[in-house]
Amino acid sequence: MCILFGCHLRRTGATPLNESSQKKSQLLKAGERLDILKKENIQIIQSPSVFSFSLDAVLLANFASVPSSRKTKIVDFCSGNGAVAFLLTGKTTNPIIGVEIQDRLIDMAKRTVQLNELEDRVSFIQADINEITSEIQPDSVDIITCNPPYFKNIPSSTKNTYSEFTIARHEIKLNLNQLMKKTGQLLKMNGKAYFVHRPDRLLEILDTMRANRLAPKKIQFIYPKAGKEANMILIEAIKDGKEDGLHILPPFYVHDETGEYTKEVKAILFGE
Amino acid sequence: MCILFGCHLRRTGATPLNESSQKKSQLLKAGERLDILKKENIQIIQSPSVFSFSLDAVLLANFASVPSSRKTKIVDFCSGNGAVAFLLTGKTTNPIIGVEIQDRLIDMAKRTVQLNELEDRVSFIQADINEITSEIQPDSVDIITCNPPYFKNIPSSTKNTYSEFTIARHEIKLNLNQLMKKTGQLLKMNGKAYFVHRPDRLLEILDTMRANRLAPKKIQFIYPKAGKEANMILIEAIKDGKEDGLHILPPFYVHDETGEYTKEVKAILFGE
Repeated sequence: MCILFGCHLRRTGATPLNESSQKKSQLLKAGERLDILKKENIQIIQSPSVFSFSLDAVLLANFASVPSSRKTKIVDFCSGNGAVAFLLTGKTTNPIIGVEIQDRLIDMAKRTVQLNELEDRVSFIQADINEITSEIQPDSVDIITCNPPYFKNIPSSTKNTYSEFTIARHEIKLNLNQLMKKTGQLLKMNGKAYFVHRPDRLLEILDTMRANRLAPKKIQFIYPKAGKEANMILIEAIKDGKEDGLHILPPFYVHDETGEYTKEVKAILFGE
Repeated sequence: MCILFGCHLRRTGATPLNESSQKKSQLLKAGERLDILKKENIQIIQSPSVFSFSLDAVLLANFASVPSSRKTKIVDFCSGNGAVAFLLTGKTTNPIIGVEIQDRLIDMAKRTVQLNELEDRVSFIQADINEITSEIQPDSVDIITCNPPYFKNIPSSTKNTYSEFTIARHEIKLNLNQLMKKTGQLLKMNGKAYFVHRPDRLLEILDTMRANRLAPKKIQFIYPKAGKEANMILIEAIKDGKEDGLHILPPFYVHDETGEYTKEVKAILFGE
């Protein structure tokens, strides 16, 4: 994700490193690199061949309304390499629990915790969201965030093994209804859930939310630039909330007419 | 609706009229006035005390995709004084049938037809939409447009009589599910329906559409100005269409930062 943050440090085996870099590089594995979350001052381990987070995660973390200090239990589903969880540290002093099913991603996330000495603020559970109630008590969570797999499973595929990328992007381990079911179970009454997803699945998102006690309350559509259709949505839902009074927030543009990030995106990414 | 079109001619009894105006004024009743649909070059009878159409109708007529000449049966539900039907004459040579339940509004609409000599292009049926299949054949219509009552009925009201304004704005004679039911019945397979409504009722709109064989395909959110929440929605649905692949069109702004209409609104209103 050089485009988002600028490459910081790579572990390729060929690059000469200074002493400080060598210390950090002990936590890096082959093919990985460190990117910087500038606003949060966090170095995050990424791997272009396995998983790198995108603007979607940044917008989700920005969209989520998280109390800065009031005691709040926060869980991030489908954490990947932990981007949303790490980004949320910039908004709250509450501990954040990330949940991710994949070995390599949870391993990267945990090393990012070590690297930034965030052990008391961010932790990760390796688990299938479908089994999450054996790890996290139902009706116990105040806020859930999730940047889930966007695409339906490919029924024509006969492969039994999938790449990390495919599992992160396709509903192989977790589909929308399963996600909403577990979100509904884990949240306290009036707890809030925040999702980033694709607009072409809006109807299914709204249906599965409501089938699982999650009332959609706010939607923000993300447009790649002026004059284009939305290509991303952010949704806030409240457990057992009333269904009336949905708010459609002001549109959010990613690029301006010159193709540069808008000042709104720059503010989120760099605090500019 | 002076703000939209500029007042043209009033029948007050006190205003002196020239000869040409006197001829037109024969079609005006007390308290009524003529406004001009500039782009369509139509003079429309309005009455501030009974019903005047608003920008909502203009945006709906603009949003509806209507073939210019290919033979198409077009029906406008909840026509009021006929604004949407008259506006559509600017887009198509096909005849347009307006349906309206209220005496005074249908009377105004019919006099606008006479005044503009549009007898072969626009006609009106006075009917309750709930009974419309006795007037218009099911599965016979290509395109339906509707600017319906936005607000739920007020159950606390004990009045048996309502003003024209109240009936036009509240679901007294027609609620969302009834509207979608009759729209679904009248449309041919793959026929299209266009609605303008309020975003706070989006969930109910999507639900009642789909319960009545109408698949939402395109949504455009209307924002009063940049930085504000949407206060209007435009929706296209297709009868028996597939439910996947919803498109969220680019946002549409009504006012610019100075409080003036945006150039997009001016283009629709005045062809500027």
